[in-house]
Amino acid sequence: MIVRFAGLGLGAATLTTVAAASGNTNADVLPPSLDVSSFMAEPVTPPSTLIKDKDDMKVKMEMLIMKIQADFCRALENEEDPSKKFIVDRWTRAEGGGGVTCVIQNGKTFEKAGVNVSVVHGILPVDAVRQMKARGKELIGKELPFFAAGISSVIHPSNPHVPTVHFNYRYFEVTQENGEKMWWFGGGTDLTPYYLVEEDVRHFHSTLKKACDLHDAGYYPKFKKWCDEYFLVSHRNESRGVGGIFFDDFEMHSQEDSFKFVKSCAESVIPSYVPLVKQHRNDPFTSAERDWQLLRRGRYVEFNLVYDRGTKFGLYTPGARIESILMSLPVYAKWEYMHSPSDGTPEAKLTEILRNPKEWI
Amino acid sequence: MIVRFAGLGLGAATLTTVAAASGNTNADVLPPSLDVSSFMAEPVTPPSTLIKDKDDMKVKMEMLIMKIQADFCRALENEEDPSKKFIVDRWTRAEGGGGVTCVIQNGKTFEKAGVNVSVVHGILPVDAVRQMKARGKELIGKELPFFAAGISSVIHPSNPHVPTVHFNYRYFEVTQENGEKMWWFGGGTDLTPYYLVEEDVRHFHSTLKKACDLHDAGYYPKFKKWCDEYFLVSHRNESRGVGGIFFDDFEMHSQEDSFKFVKSCAESVIPSYVPLVKQHRNDPFTSAERDWQLLRRGRYVEFNLVYDRGTKFGLYTPGARIESILMSLPVYAKWEYMHSPSDGTPEAKLTEILRNPKEWI
Repeated sequence: MIVRFAGLGLGAATLTTVAAASGNTNADVLPPSLDVSSFMAEPVTPPSTLIKDKDDMKVKMEMLIMKIQADFCRALENEEDPSKKFIVDRWTRAEGGGGVTCVIQNGKTFEKAGVNVSVVHGILPVDAVRQMKARGKELIGKELPFFAAGISSVIHPSNPHVPTVHFNYRYFEVTQENGEKMWWFGGGTDLTPYYLVEEDVRHFHSTLKKACDLHDAGYYPKFKKWCDEYFLVSHRNESRGVGGIFFDDFEMHSQEDSFKFVKSCAESVIPSYVPLVKQHRNDPFTSAERDWQLLRRGRYVEFNLVYDRGTKFGLYTPGARIESILMSLPVYAKWEYMHSPSDGTPEAKLTEILRNPKEWI
Repeated sequence: MIVRFAGLGLGAATLTTVAAASGNTNADVLPPSLDVSSFMAEPVTPPSTLIKDKDDMKVKMEMLIMKIQADFCRALENEEDPSKKFIVDRWTRAEGGGGVTCVIQNGKTFEKAGVNVSVVHGILPVDAVRQMKARGKELIGKELPFFAAGISSVIHPSNPHVPTVHFNYRYFEVTQENGEKMWWFGGGTDLTPYYLVEEDVRHFHSTLKKACDLHDAGYYPKFKKWCDEYFLVSHRNESRGVGGIFFDDFEMHSQEDSFKFVKSCAESVIPSYVPLVKQHRNDPFTSAERDWQLLRRGRYVEFNLVYDRGTKFGLYTPGARIESILMSLPVYAKWEYMHSPSDGTPEAKLTEILRNPKEWI
């Protein structure tokens, strides 16, 4: 089932309305941490559960990602033609849970901007679970009860001088056959410029580092490296972009501390990226630059379809909403046999960096 | 190492010349089955080996696919602007073997046409070998000596009324750790129209059936079904196109009989496909039809990068030539969030067929 809202404010029923309708509560008793009035749509989980389990990590994560989604969508809309707003699709999954997918397509600033929240649960084939586990911890059992709440976003701007950004933050719970419950967080934010502006890349990395440093000075270097290793188009031996941070199976310290770290990371997306949009969205560009952007988007497609674990996880999950998973793909992509930028061009400079990831700060 | 030839005739040294240079033989003693004068480039295997081992299946297959490549390229050039000829890249693989890649890009008739021959050998990780084995026969050993000779081609025409065609025929030898040598053939030809012309699809299937029927009346129905099952974009539950034939692990009867069957299939590509190019390449089309073509090409990319075993085999093979593997990707592809053709349109008619493969003859 899909309920489609369009535009800012979106007619998205607030929890107040929904809760009143369900007769379980009303706006007066909503704890402030459950204020959903600014969300792009109603949360996936019923209001009664959100209130009853408000201290459960599943609910805390859902509330966080709904807020991050709304904040990010609004920040992007500020950079877009005022007549162009996010389309909002709230969907449910027959097997359990659902999500809220927000998309701008063919905007002035954003050729495609997708911001997706999903909160799903049910029984998962172990192959799908494994896609989200980077490390060797074996899951016991073939089909496992699971819960996953995540936000995932890819922004493909129109102007080749504005980089593409991707971020994804997720929380997982899996119950093994022996009854043991596992939980972990994963996520990351990474930047894919078409033209390299070193100062922008430094700003991007510095902002992520600041978020990491609030929690552990070791996180940024570790997760920066992990990002370089993960976002690699192996068959071309080149990085997808200039990296950022990436981590998986994050379960250090307490669940609460882990959550706070993830929250800091997710909250650093806007300050790391939106200034670059603001600065470059009206830059003049040539058709040759547009062409290069499309070729690089071809590489983006290669990474997403061949390697990305998030995409594979989606494709392996029964009842997954394909349009929400593949909204990460650009409107247009291009492949040219044996294309190689000429020496000394900005395109060659970028290619050089993609083949030799460096420290930015 | 890449030697690039361009244009018809290509300056491709004939075996005569090469053989004379190598001092092993001369044109007078070349058996007629080894006439390479019409090939797009020199075969991969040295002339002395071609002559010495002319009855070995490895050589017979290489000679077949070099001829099929040349015949098909010439047939396509006949439909193209006379000034636009195949670019021919003859390449060698450090780990053993090489290939000949022929590409037309941004032609009048063909937006992208790739016809690739590869003849490679060496040591293969078992994961790569498995990509070529559809059935459950386990290969013993982790890294296995192998030989593979194949032709692979994808033609993406400019005009949306001309279907895309793909074909691939290959011969494999693998020596297991216990010394046992296995061989098999695989291949197929399948059609991906953007607009359905039932008569064309019937012509295509009939031509393939005729080739199959020369060998066994049971082949066409069996391999037609296999094709429908293989070229499935599972996550969308739709076929890539209107099918054709597909088989793998083909080792029935004698090696010679298997080869003859594969030869018939490969020789049926031109009569099955080129008439459709001839008939529709100058059809008028609208920008909306072009747009639909690009969206369907997005689905083609999804299949090739997510599911295609040939592509995976390539990506897993050390030293593989990525540009030759990914020449199957179109110049342009498009993705649109939640795109769905309106009821009653030709686009909807095609989509319906892709969701419900049917018998064409």
